[in-house]
Amino acid sequence: MSESKPSVSAALLVIGDEILSGRTQDKNIHFLANHLTSIGIDLREVRVVPDDEAMIVAAVNTLRTSYDYLFTTGGIGPTHDDITALSLARAFGVPLVEHEDALALMAKRYGETGLTPARRLMARVPEGGVLVGDPETNSPGFMIDNVFMLAGVPAICRAMIKTLTPHLRTGPHVLSLSMTAKCKESEIAALLSRQQEASAAISIGSYPYFRGGEYGVNIVLRGTDEVKLQAAFKALASELETYGADIIIPDGASGE
Amino acid sequence: MSESKPSVSAALLVIGDEILSGRTQDKNIHFLANHLTSIGIDLREVRVVPDDEAMIVAAVNTLRTSYDYLFTTGGIGPTHDDITALSLARAFGVPLVEHEDALALMAKRYGETGLTPARRLMARVPEGGVLVGDPETNSPGFMIDNVFMLAGVPAICRAMIKTLTPHLRTGPHVLSLSMTAKCKESEIAALLSRQQEASAAISIGSYPYFRGGEYGVNIVLRGTDEVKLQAAFKALASELETYGADIIIPDGASGE
Repeated sequence: MSESKPSVSAALLVIGDEILSGRTQDKNIHFLANHLTSIGIDLREVRVVPDDEAMIVAAVNTLRTSYDYLFTTGGIGPTHDDITALSLARAFGVPLVEHEDALALMAKRYGETGLTPARRLMARVPEGGVLVGDPETNSPGFMIDNVFMLAGVPAICRAMIKTLTPHLRTGPHVLSLSMTAKCKESEIAALLSRQQEASAAISIGSYPYFRGGEYGVNIVLRGTDEVKLQAAFKALASELETYGADIIIPDGASGE
Repeated sequence: MSESKPSVSAALLVIGDEILSGRTQDKNIHFLANHLTSIGIDLREVRVVPDDEAMIVAAVNTLRTSYDYLFTTGGIGPTHDDITALSLARAFGVPLVEHEDALALMAKRYGETGLTPARRLMARVPEGGVLVGDPETNSPGFMIDNVFMLAGVPAICRAMIKTLTPHLRTGPHVLSLSMTAKCKESEIAALLSRQQEASAAISIGSYPYFRGGEYGVNIVLRGTDEVKLQAAFKALASELETYGADIIIPDGASGE
């Protein structure tokens, strides 16, 4: 049952003053985290930076060389504060050029006369970039080397990632099983720690909550080997029962 | 009207596998971004990293030396995957020690006999750390140098930041004014760009939307000088009217 594909890592760079000022609540981090996990890509790091060229360039160059893929969101519109394409060109040390396919897509959408200077700005891409077209909205997104530029507007971001998903290399799927123990986390901390030590291939996460006057702990086991995951799950449930904890195992017991 | 206090910068480090796997949706970034903006602290960068000591240490050391303050969220519970205090100790090159005030707070809450080994783990702090007590929940949080360890559980995180806010140095408040132009962003991109060039002290952000079949752009002007902000706002509204855009100015016109 265990998959032997090598794992594939990714980072996400969220670009935009509006996220850091609190004006806008980011909706892409959670969506992309779920999506990448579901297709077998391991999201290892997220950064949020302002519309600041030096900060974008530094983050892009660190992240694209540290992980298999880098996704950026935001800053791809036609206005002065949309500097993602320019910053990517600087990061790669290449000129920013008009991309023929993107221009053609825009001409199709707006007509030749609607191809205003502002719209032409959106067809600029770091030299060597490849168009990642979204057939539904014609929003041009670009890929250069291992970096994908996605829109900040959530609906467009989602459409873009859907379009490019078939082109991504993926690793083994991370499977998960979860249970809830109705007790305080500190009571079972030592028990969880022993179980973690006994199952090196599985990662055990524990997330306490306090709701309606009751303490509880959601426990999530994650790993790529289904047999080992099931074994660790059974061993943990058995230990918790022996300890006397009231545990709840959801039907089908596969979270995420 | 303009404030002349020096600006104060901050970074936020969100720690937790569960955010990167998509299991949990972070709720602290948006809250802290709003809160810090409202008290006059400029949030300049956010990073999300897994429960991985090396990655936490590297991020802590970069961020605490780059900004006036660093806030961390997550990883402060009693279980094996709660490694924030340990990682902070490594980052500062100091031992992790039991903190007397935190132990006293816990003894008060749980009684001497309820002070289990797992609970004692939560009273460990990098040597030199100072307790940031939350009087409501007795959740111990710590400050070491310019770094604050906050809880990942949103309600506790909020209680903690409230407790420590009076102790933070703050800079000038960023004021904002906003309007909506009912047109496509690309139509007014050049106009916005000219206005931005004319008002160096003000930052103009433009956020397009598409709702119910209608295009529009939310335009936000931000700055610390109220007189310059008002002047830039009026100039922009006048330019947009001259252009023929249908604009909406909210009553009181102060966003965020």
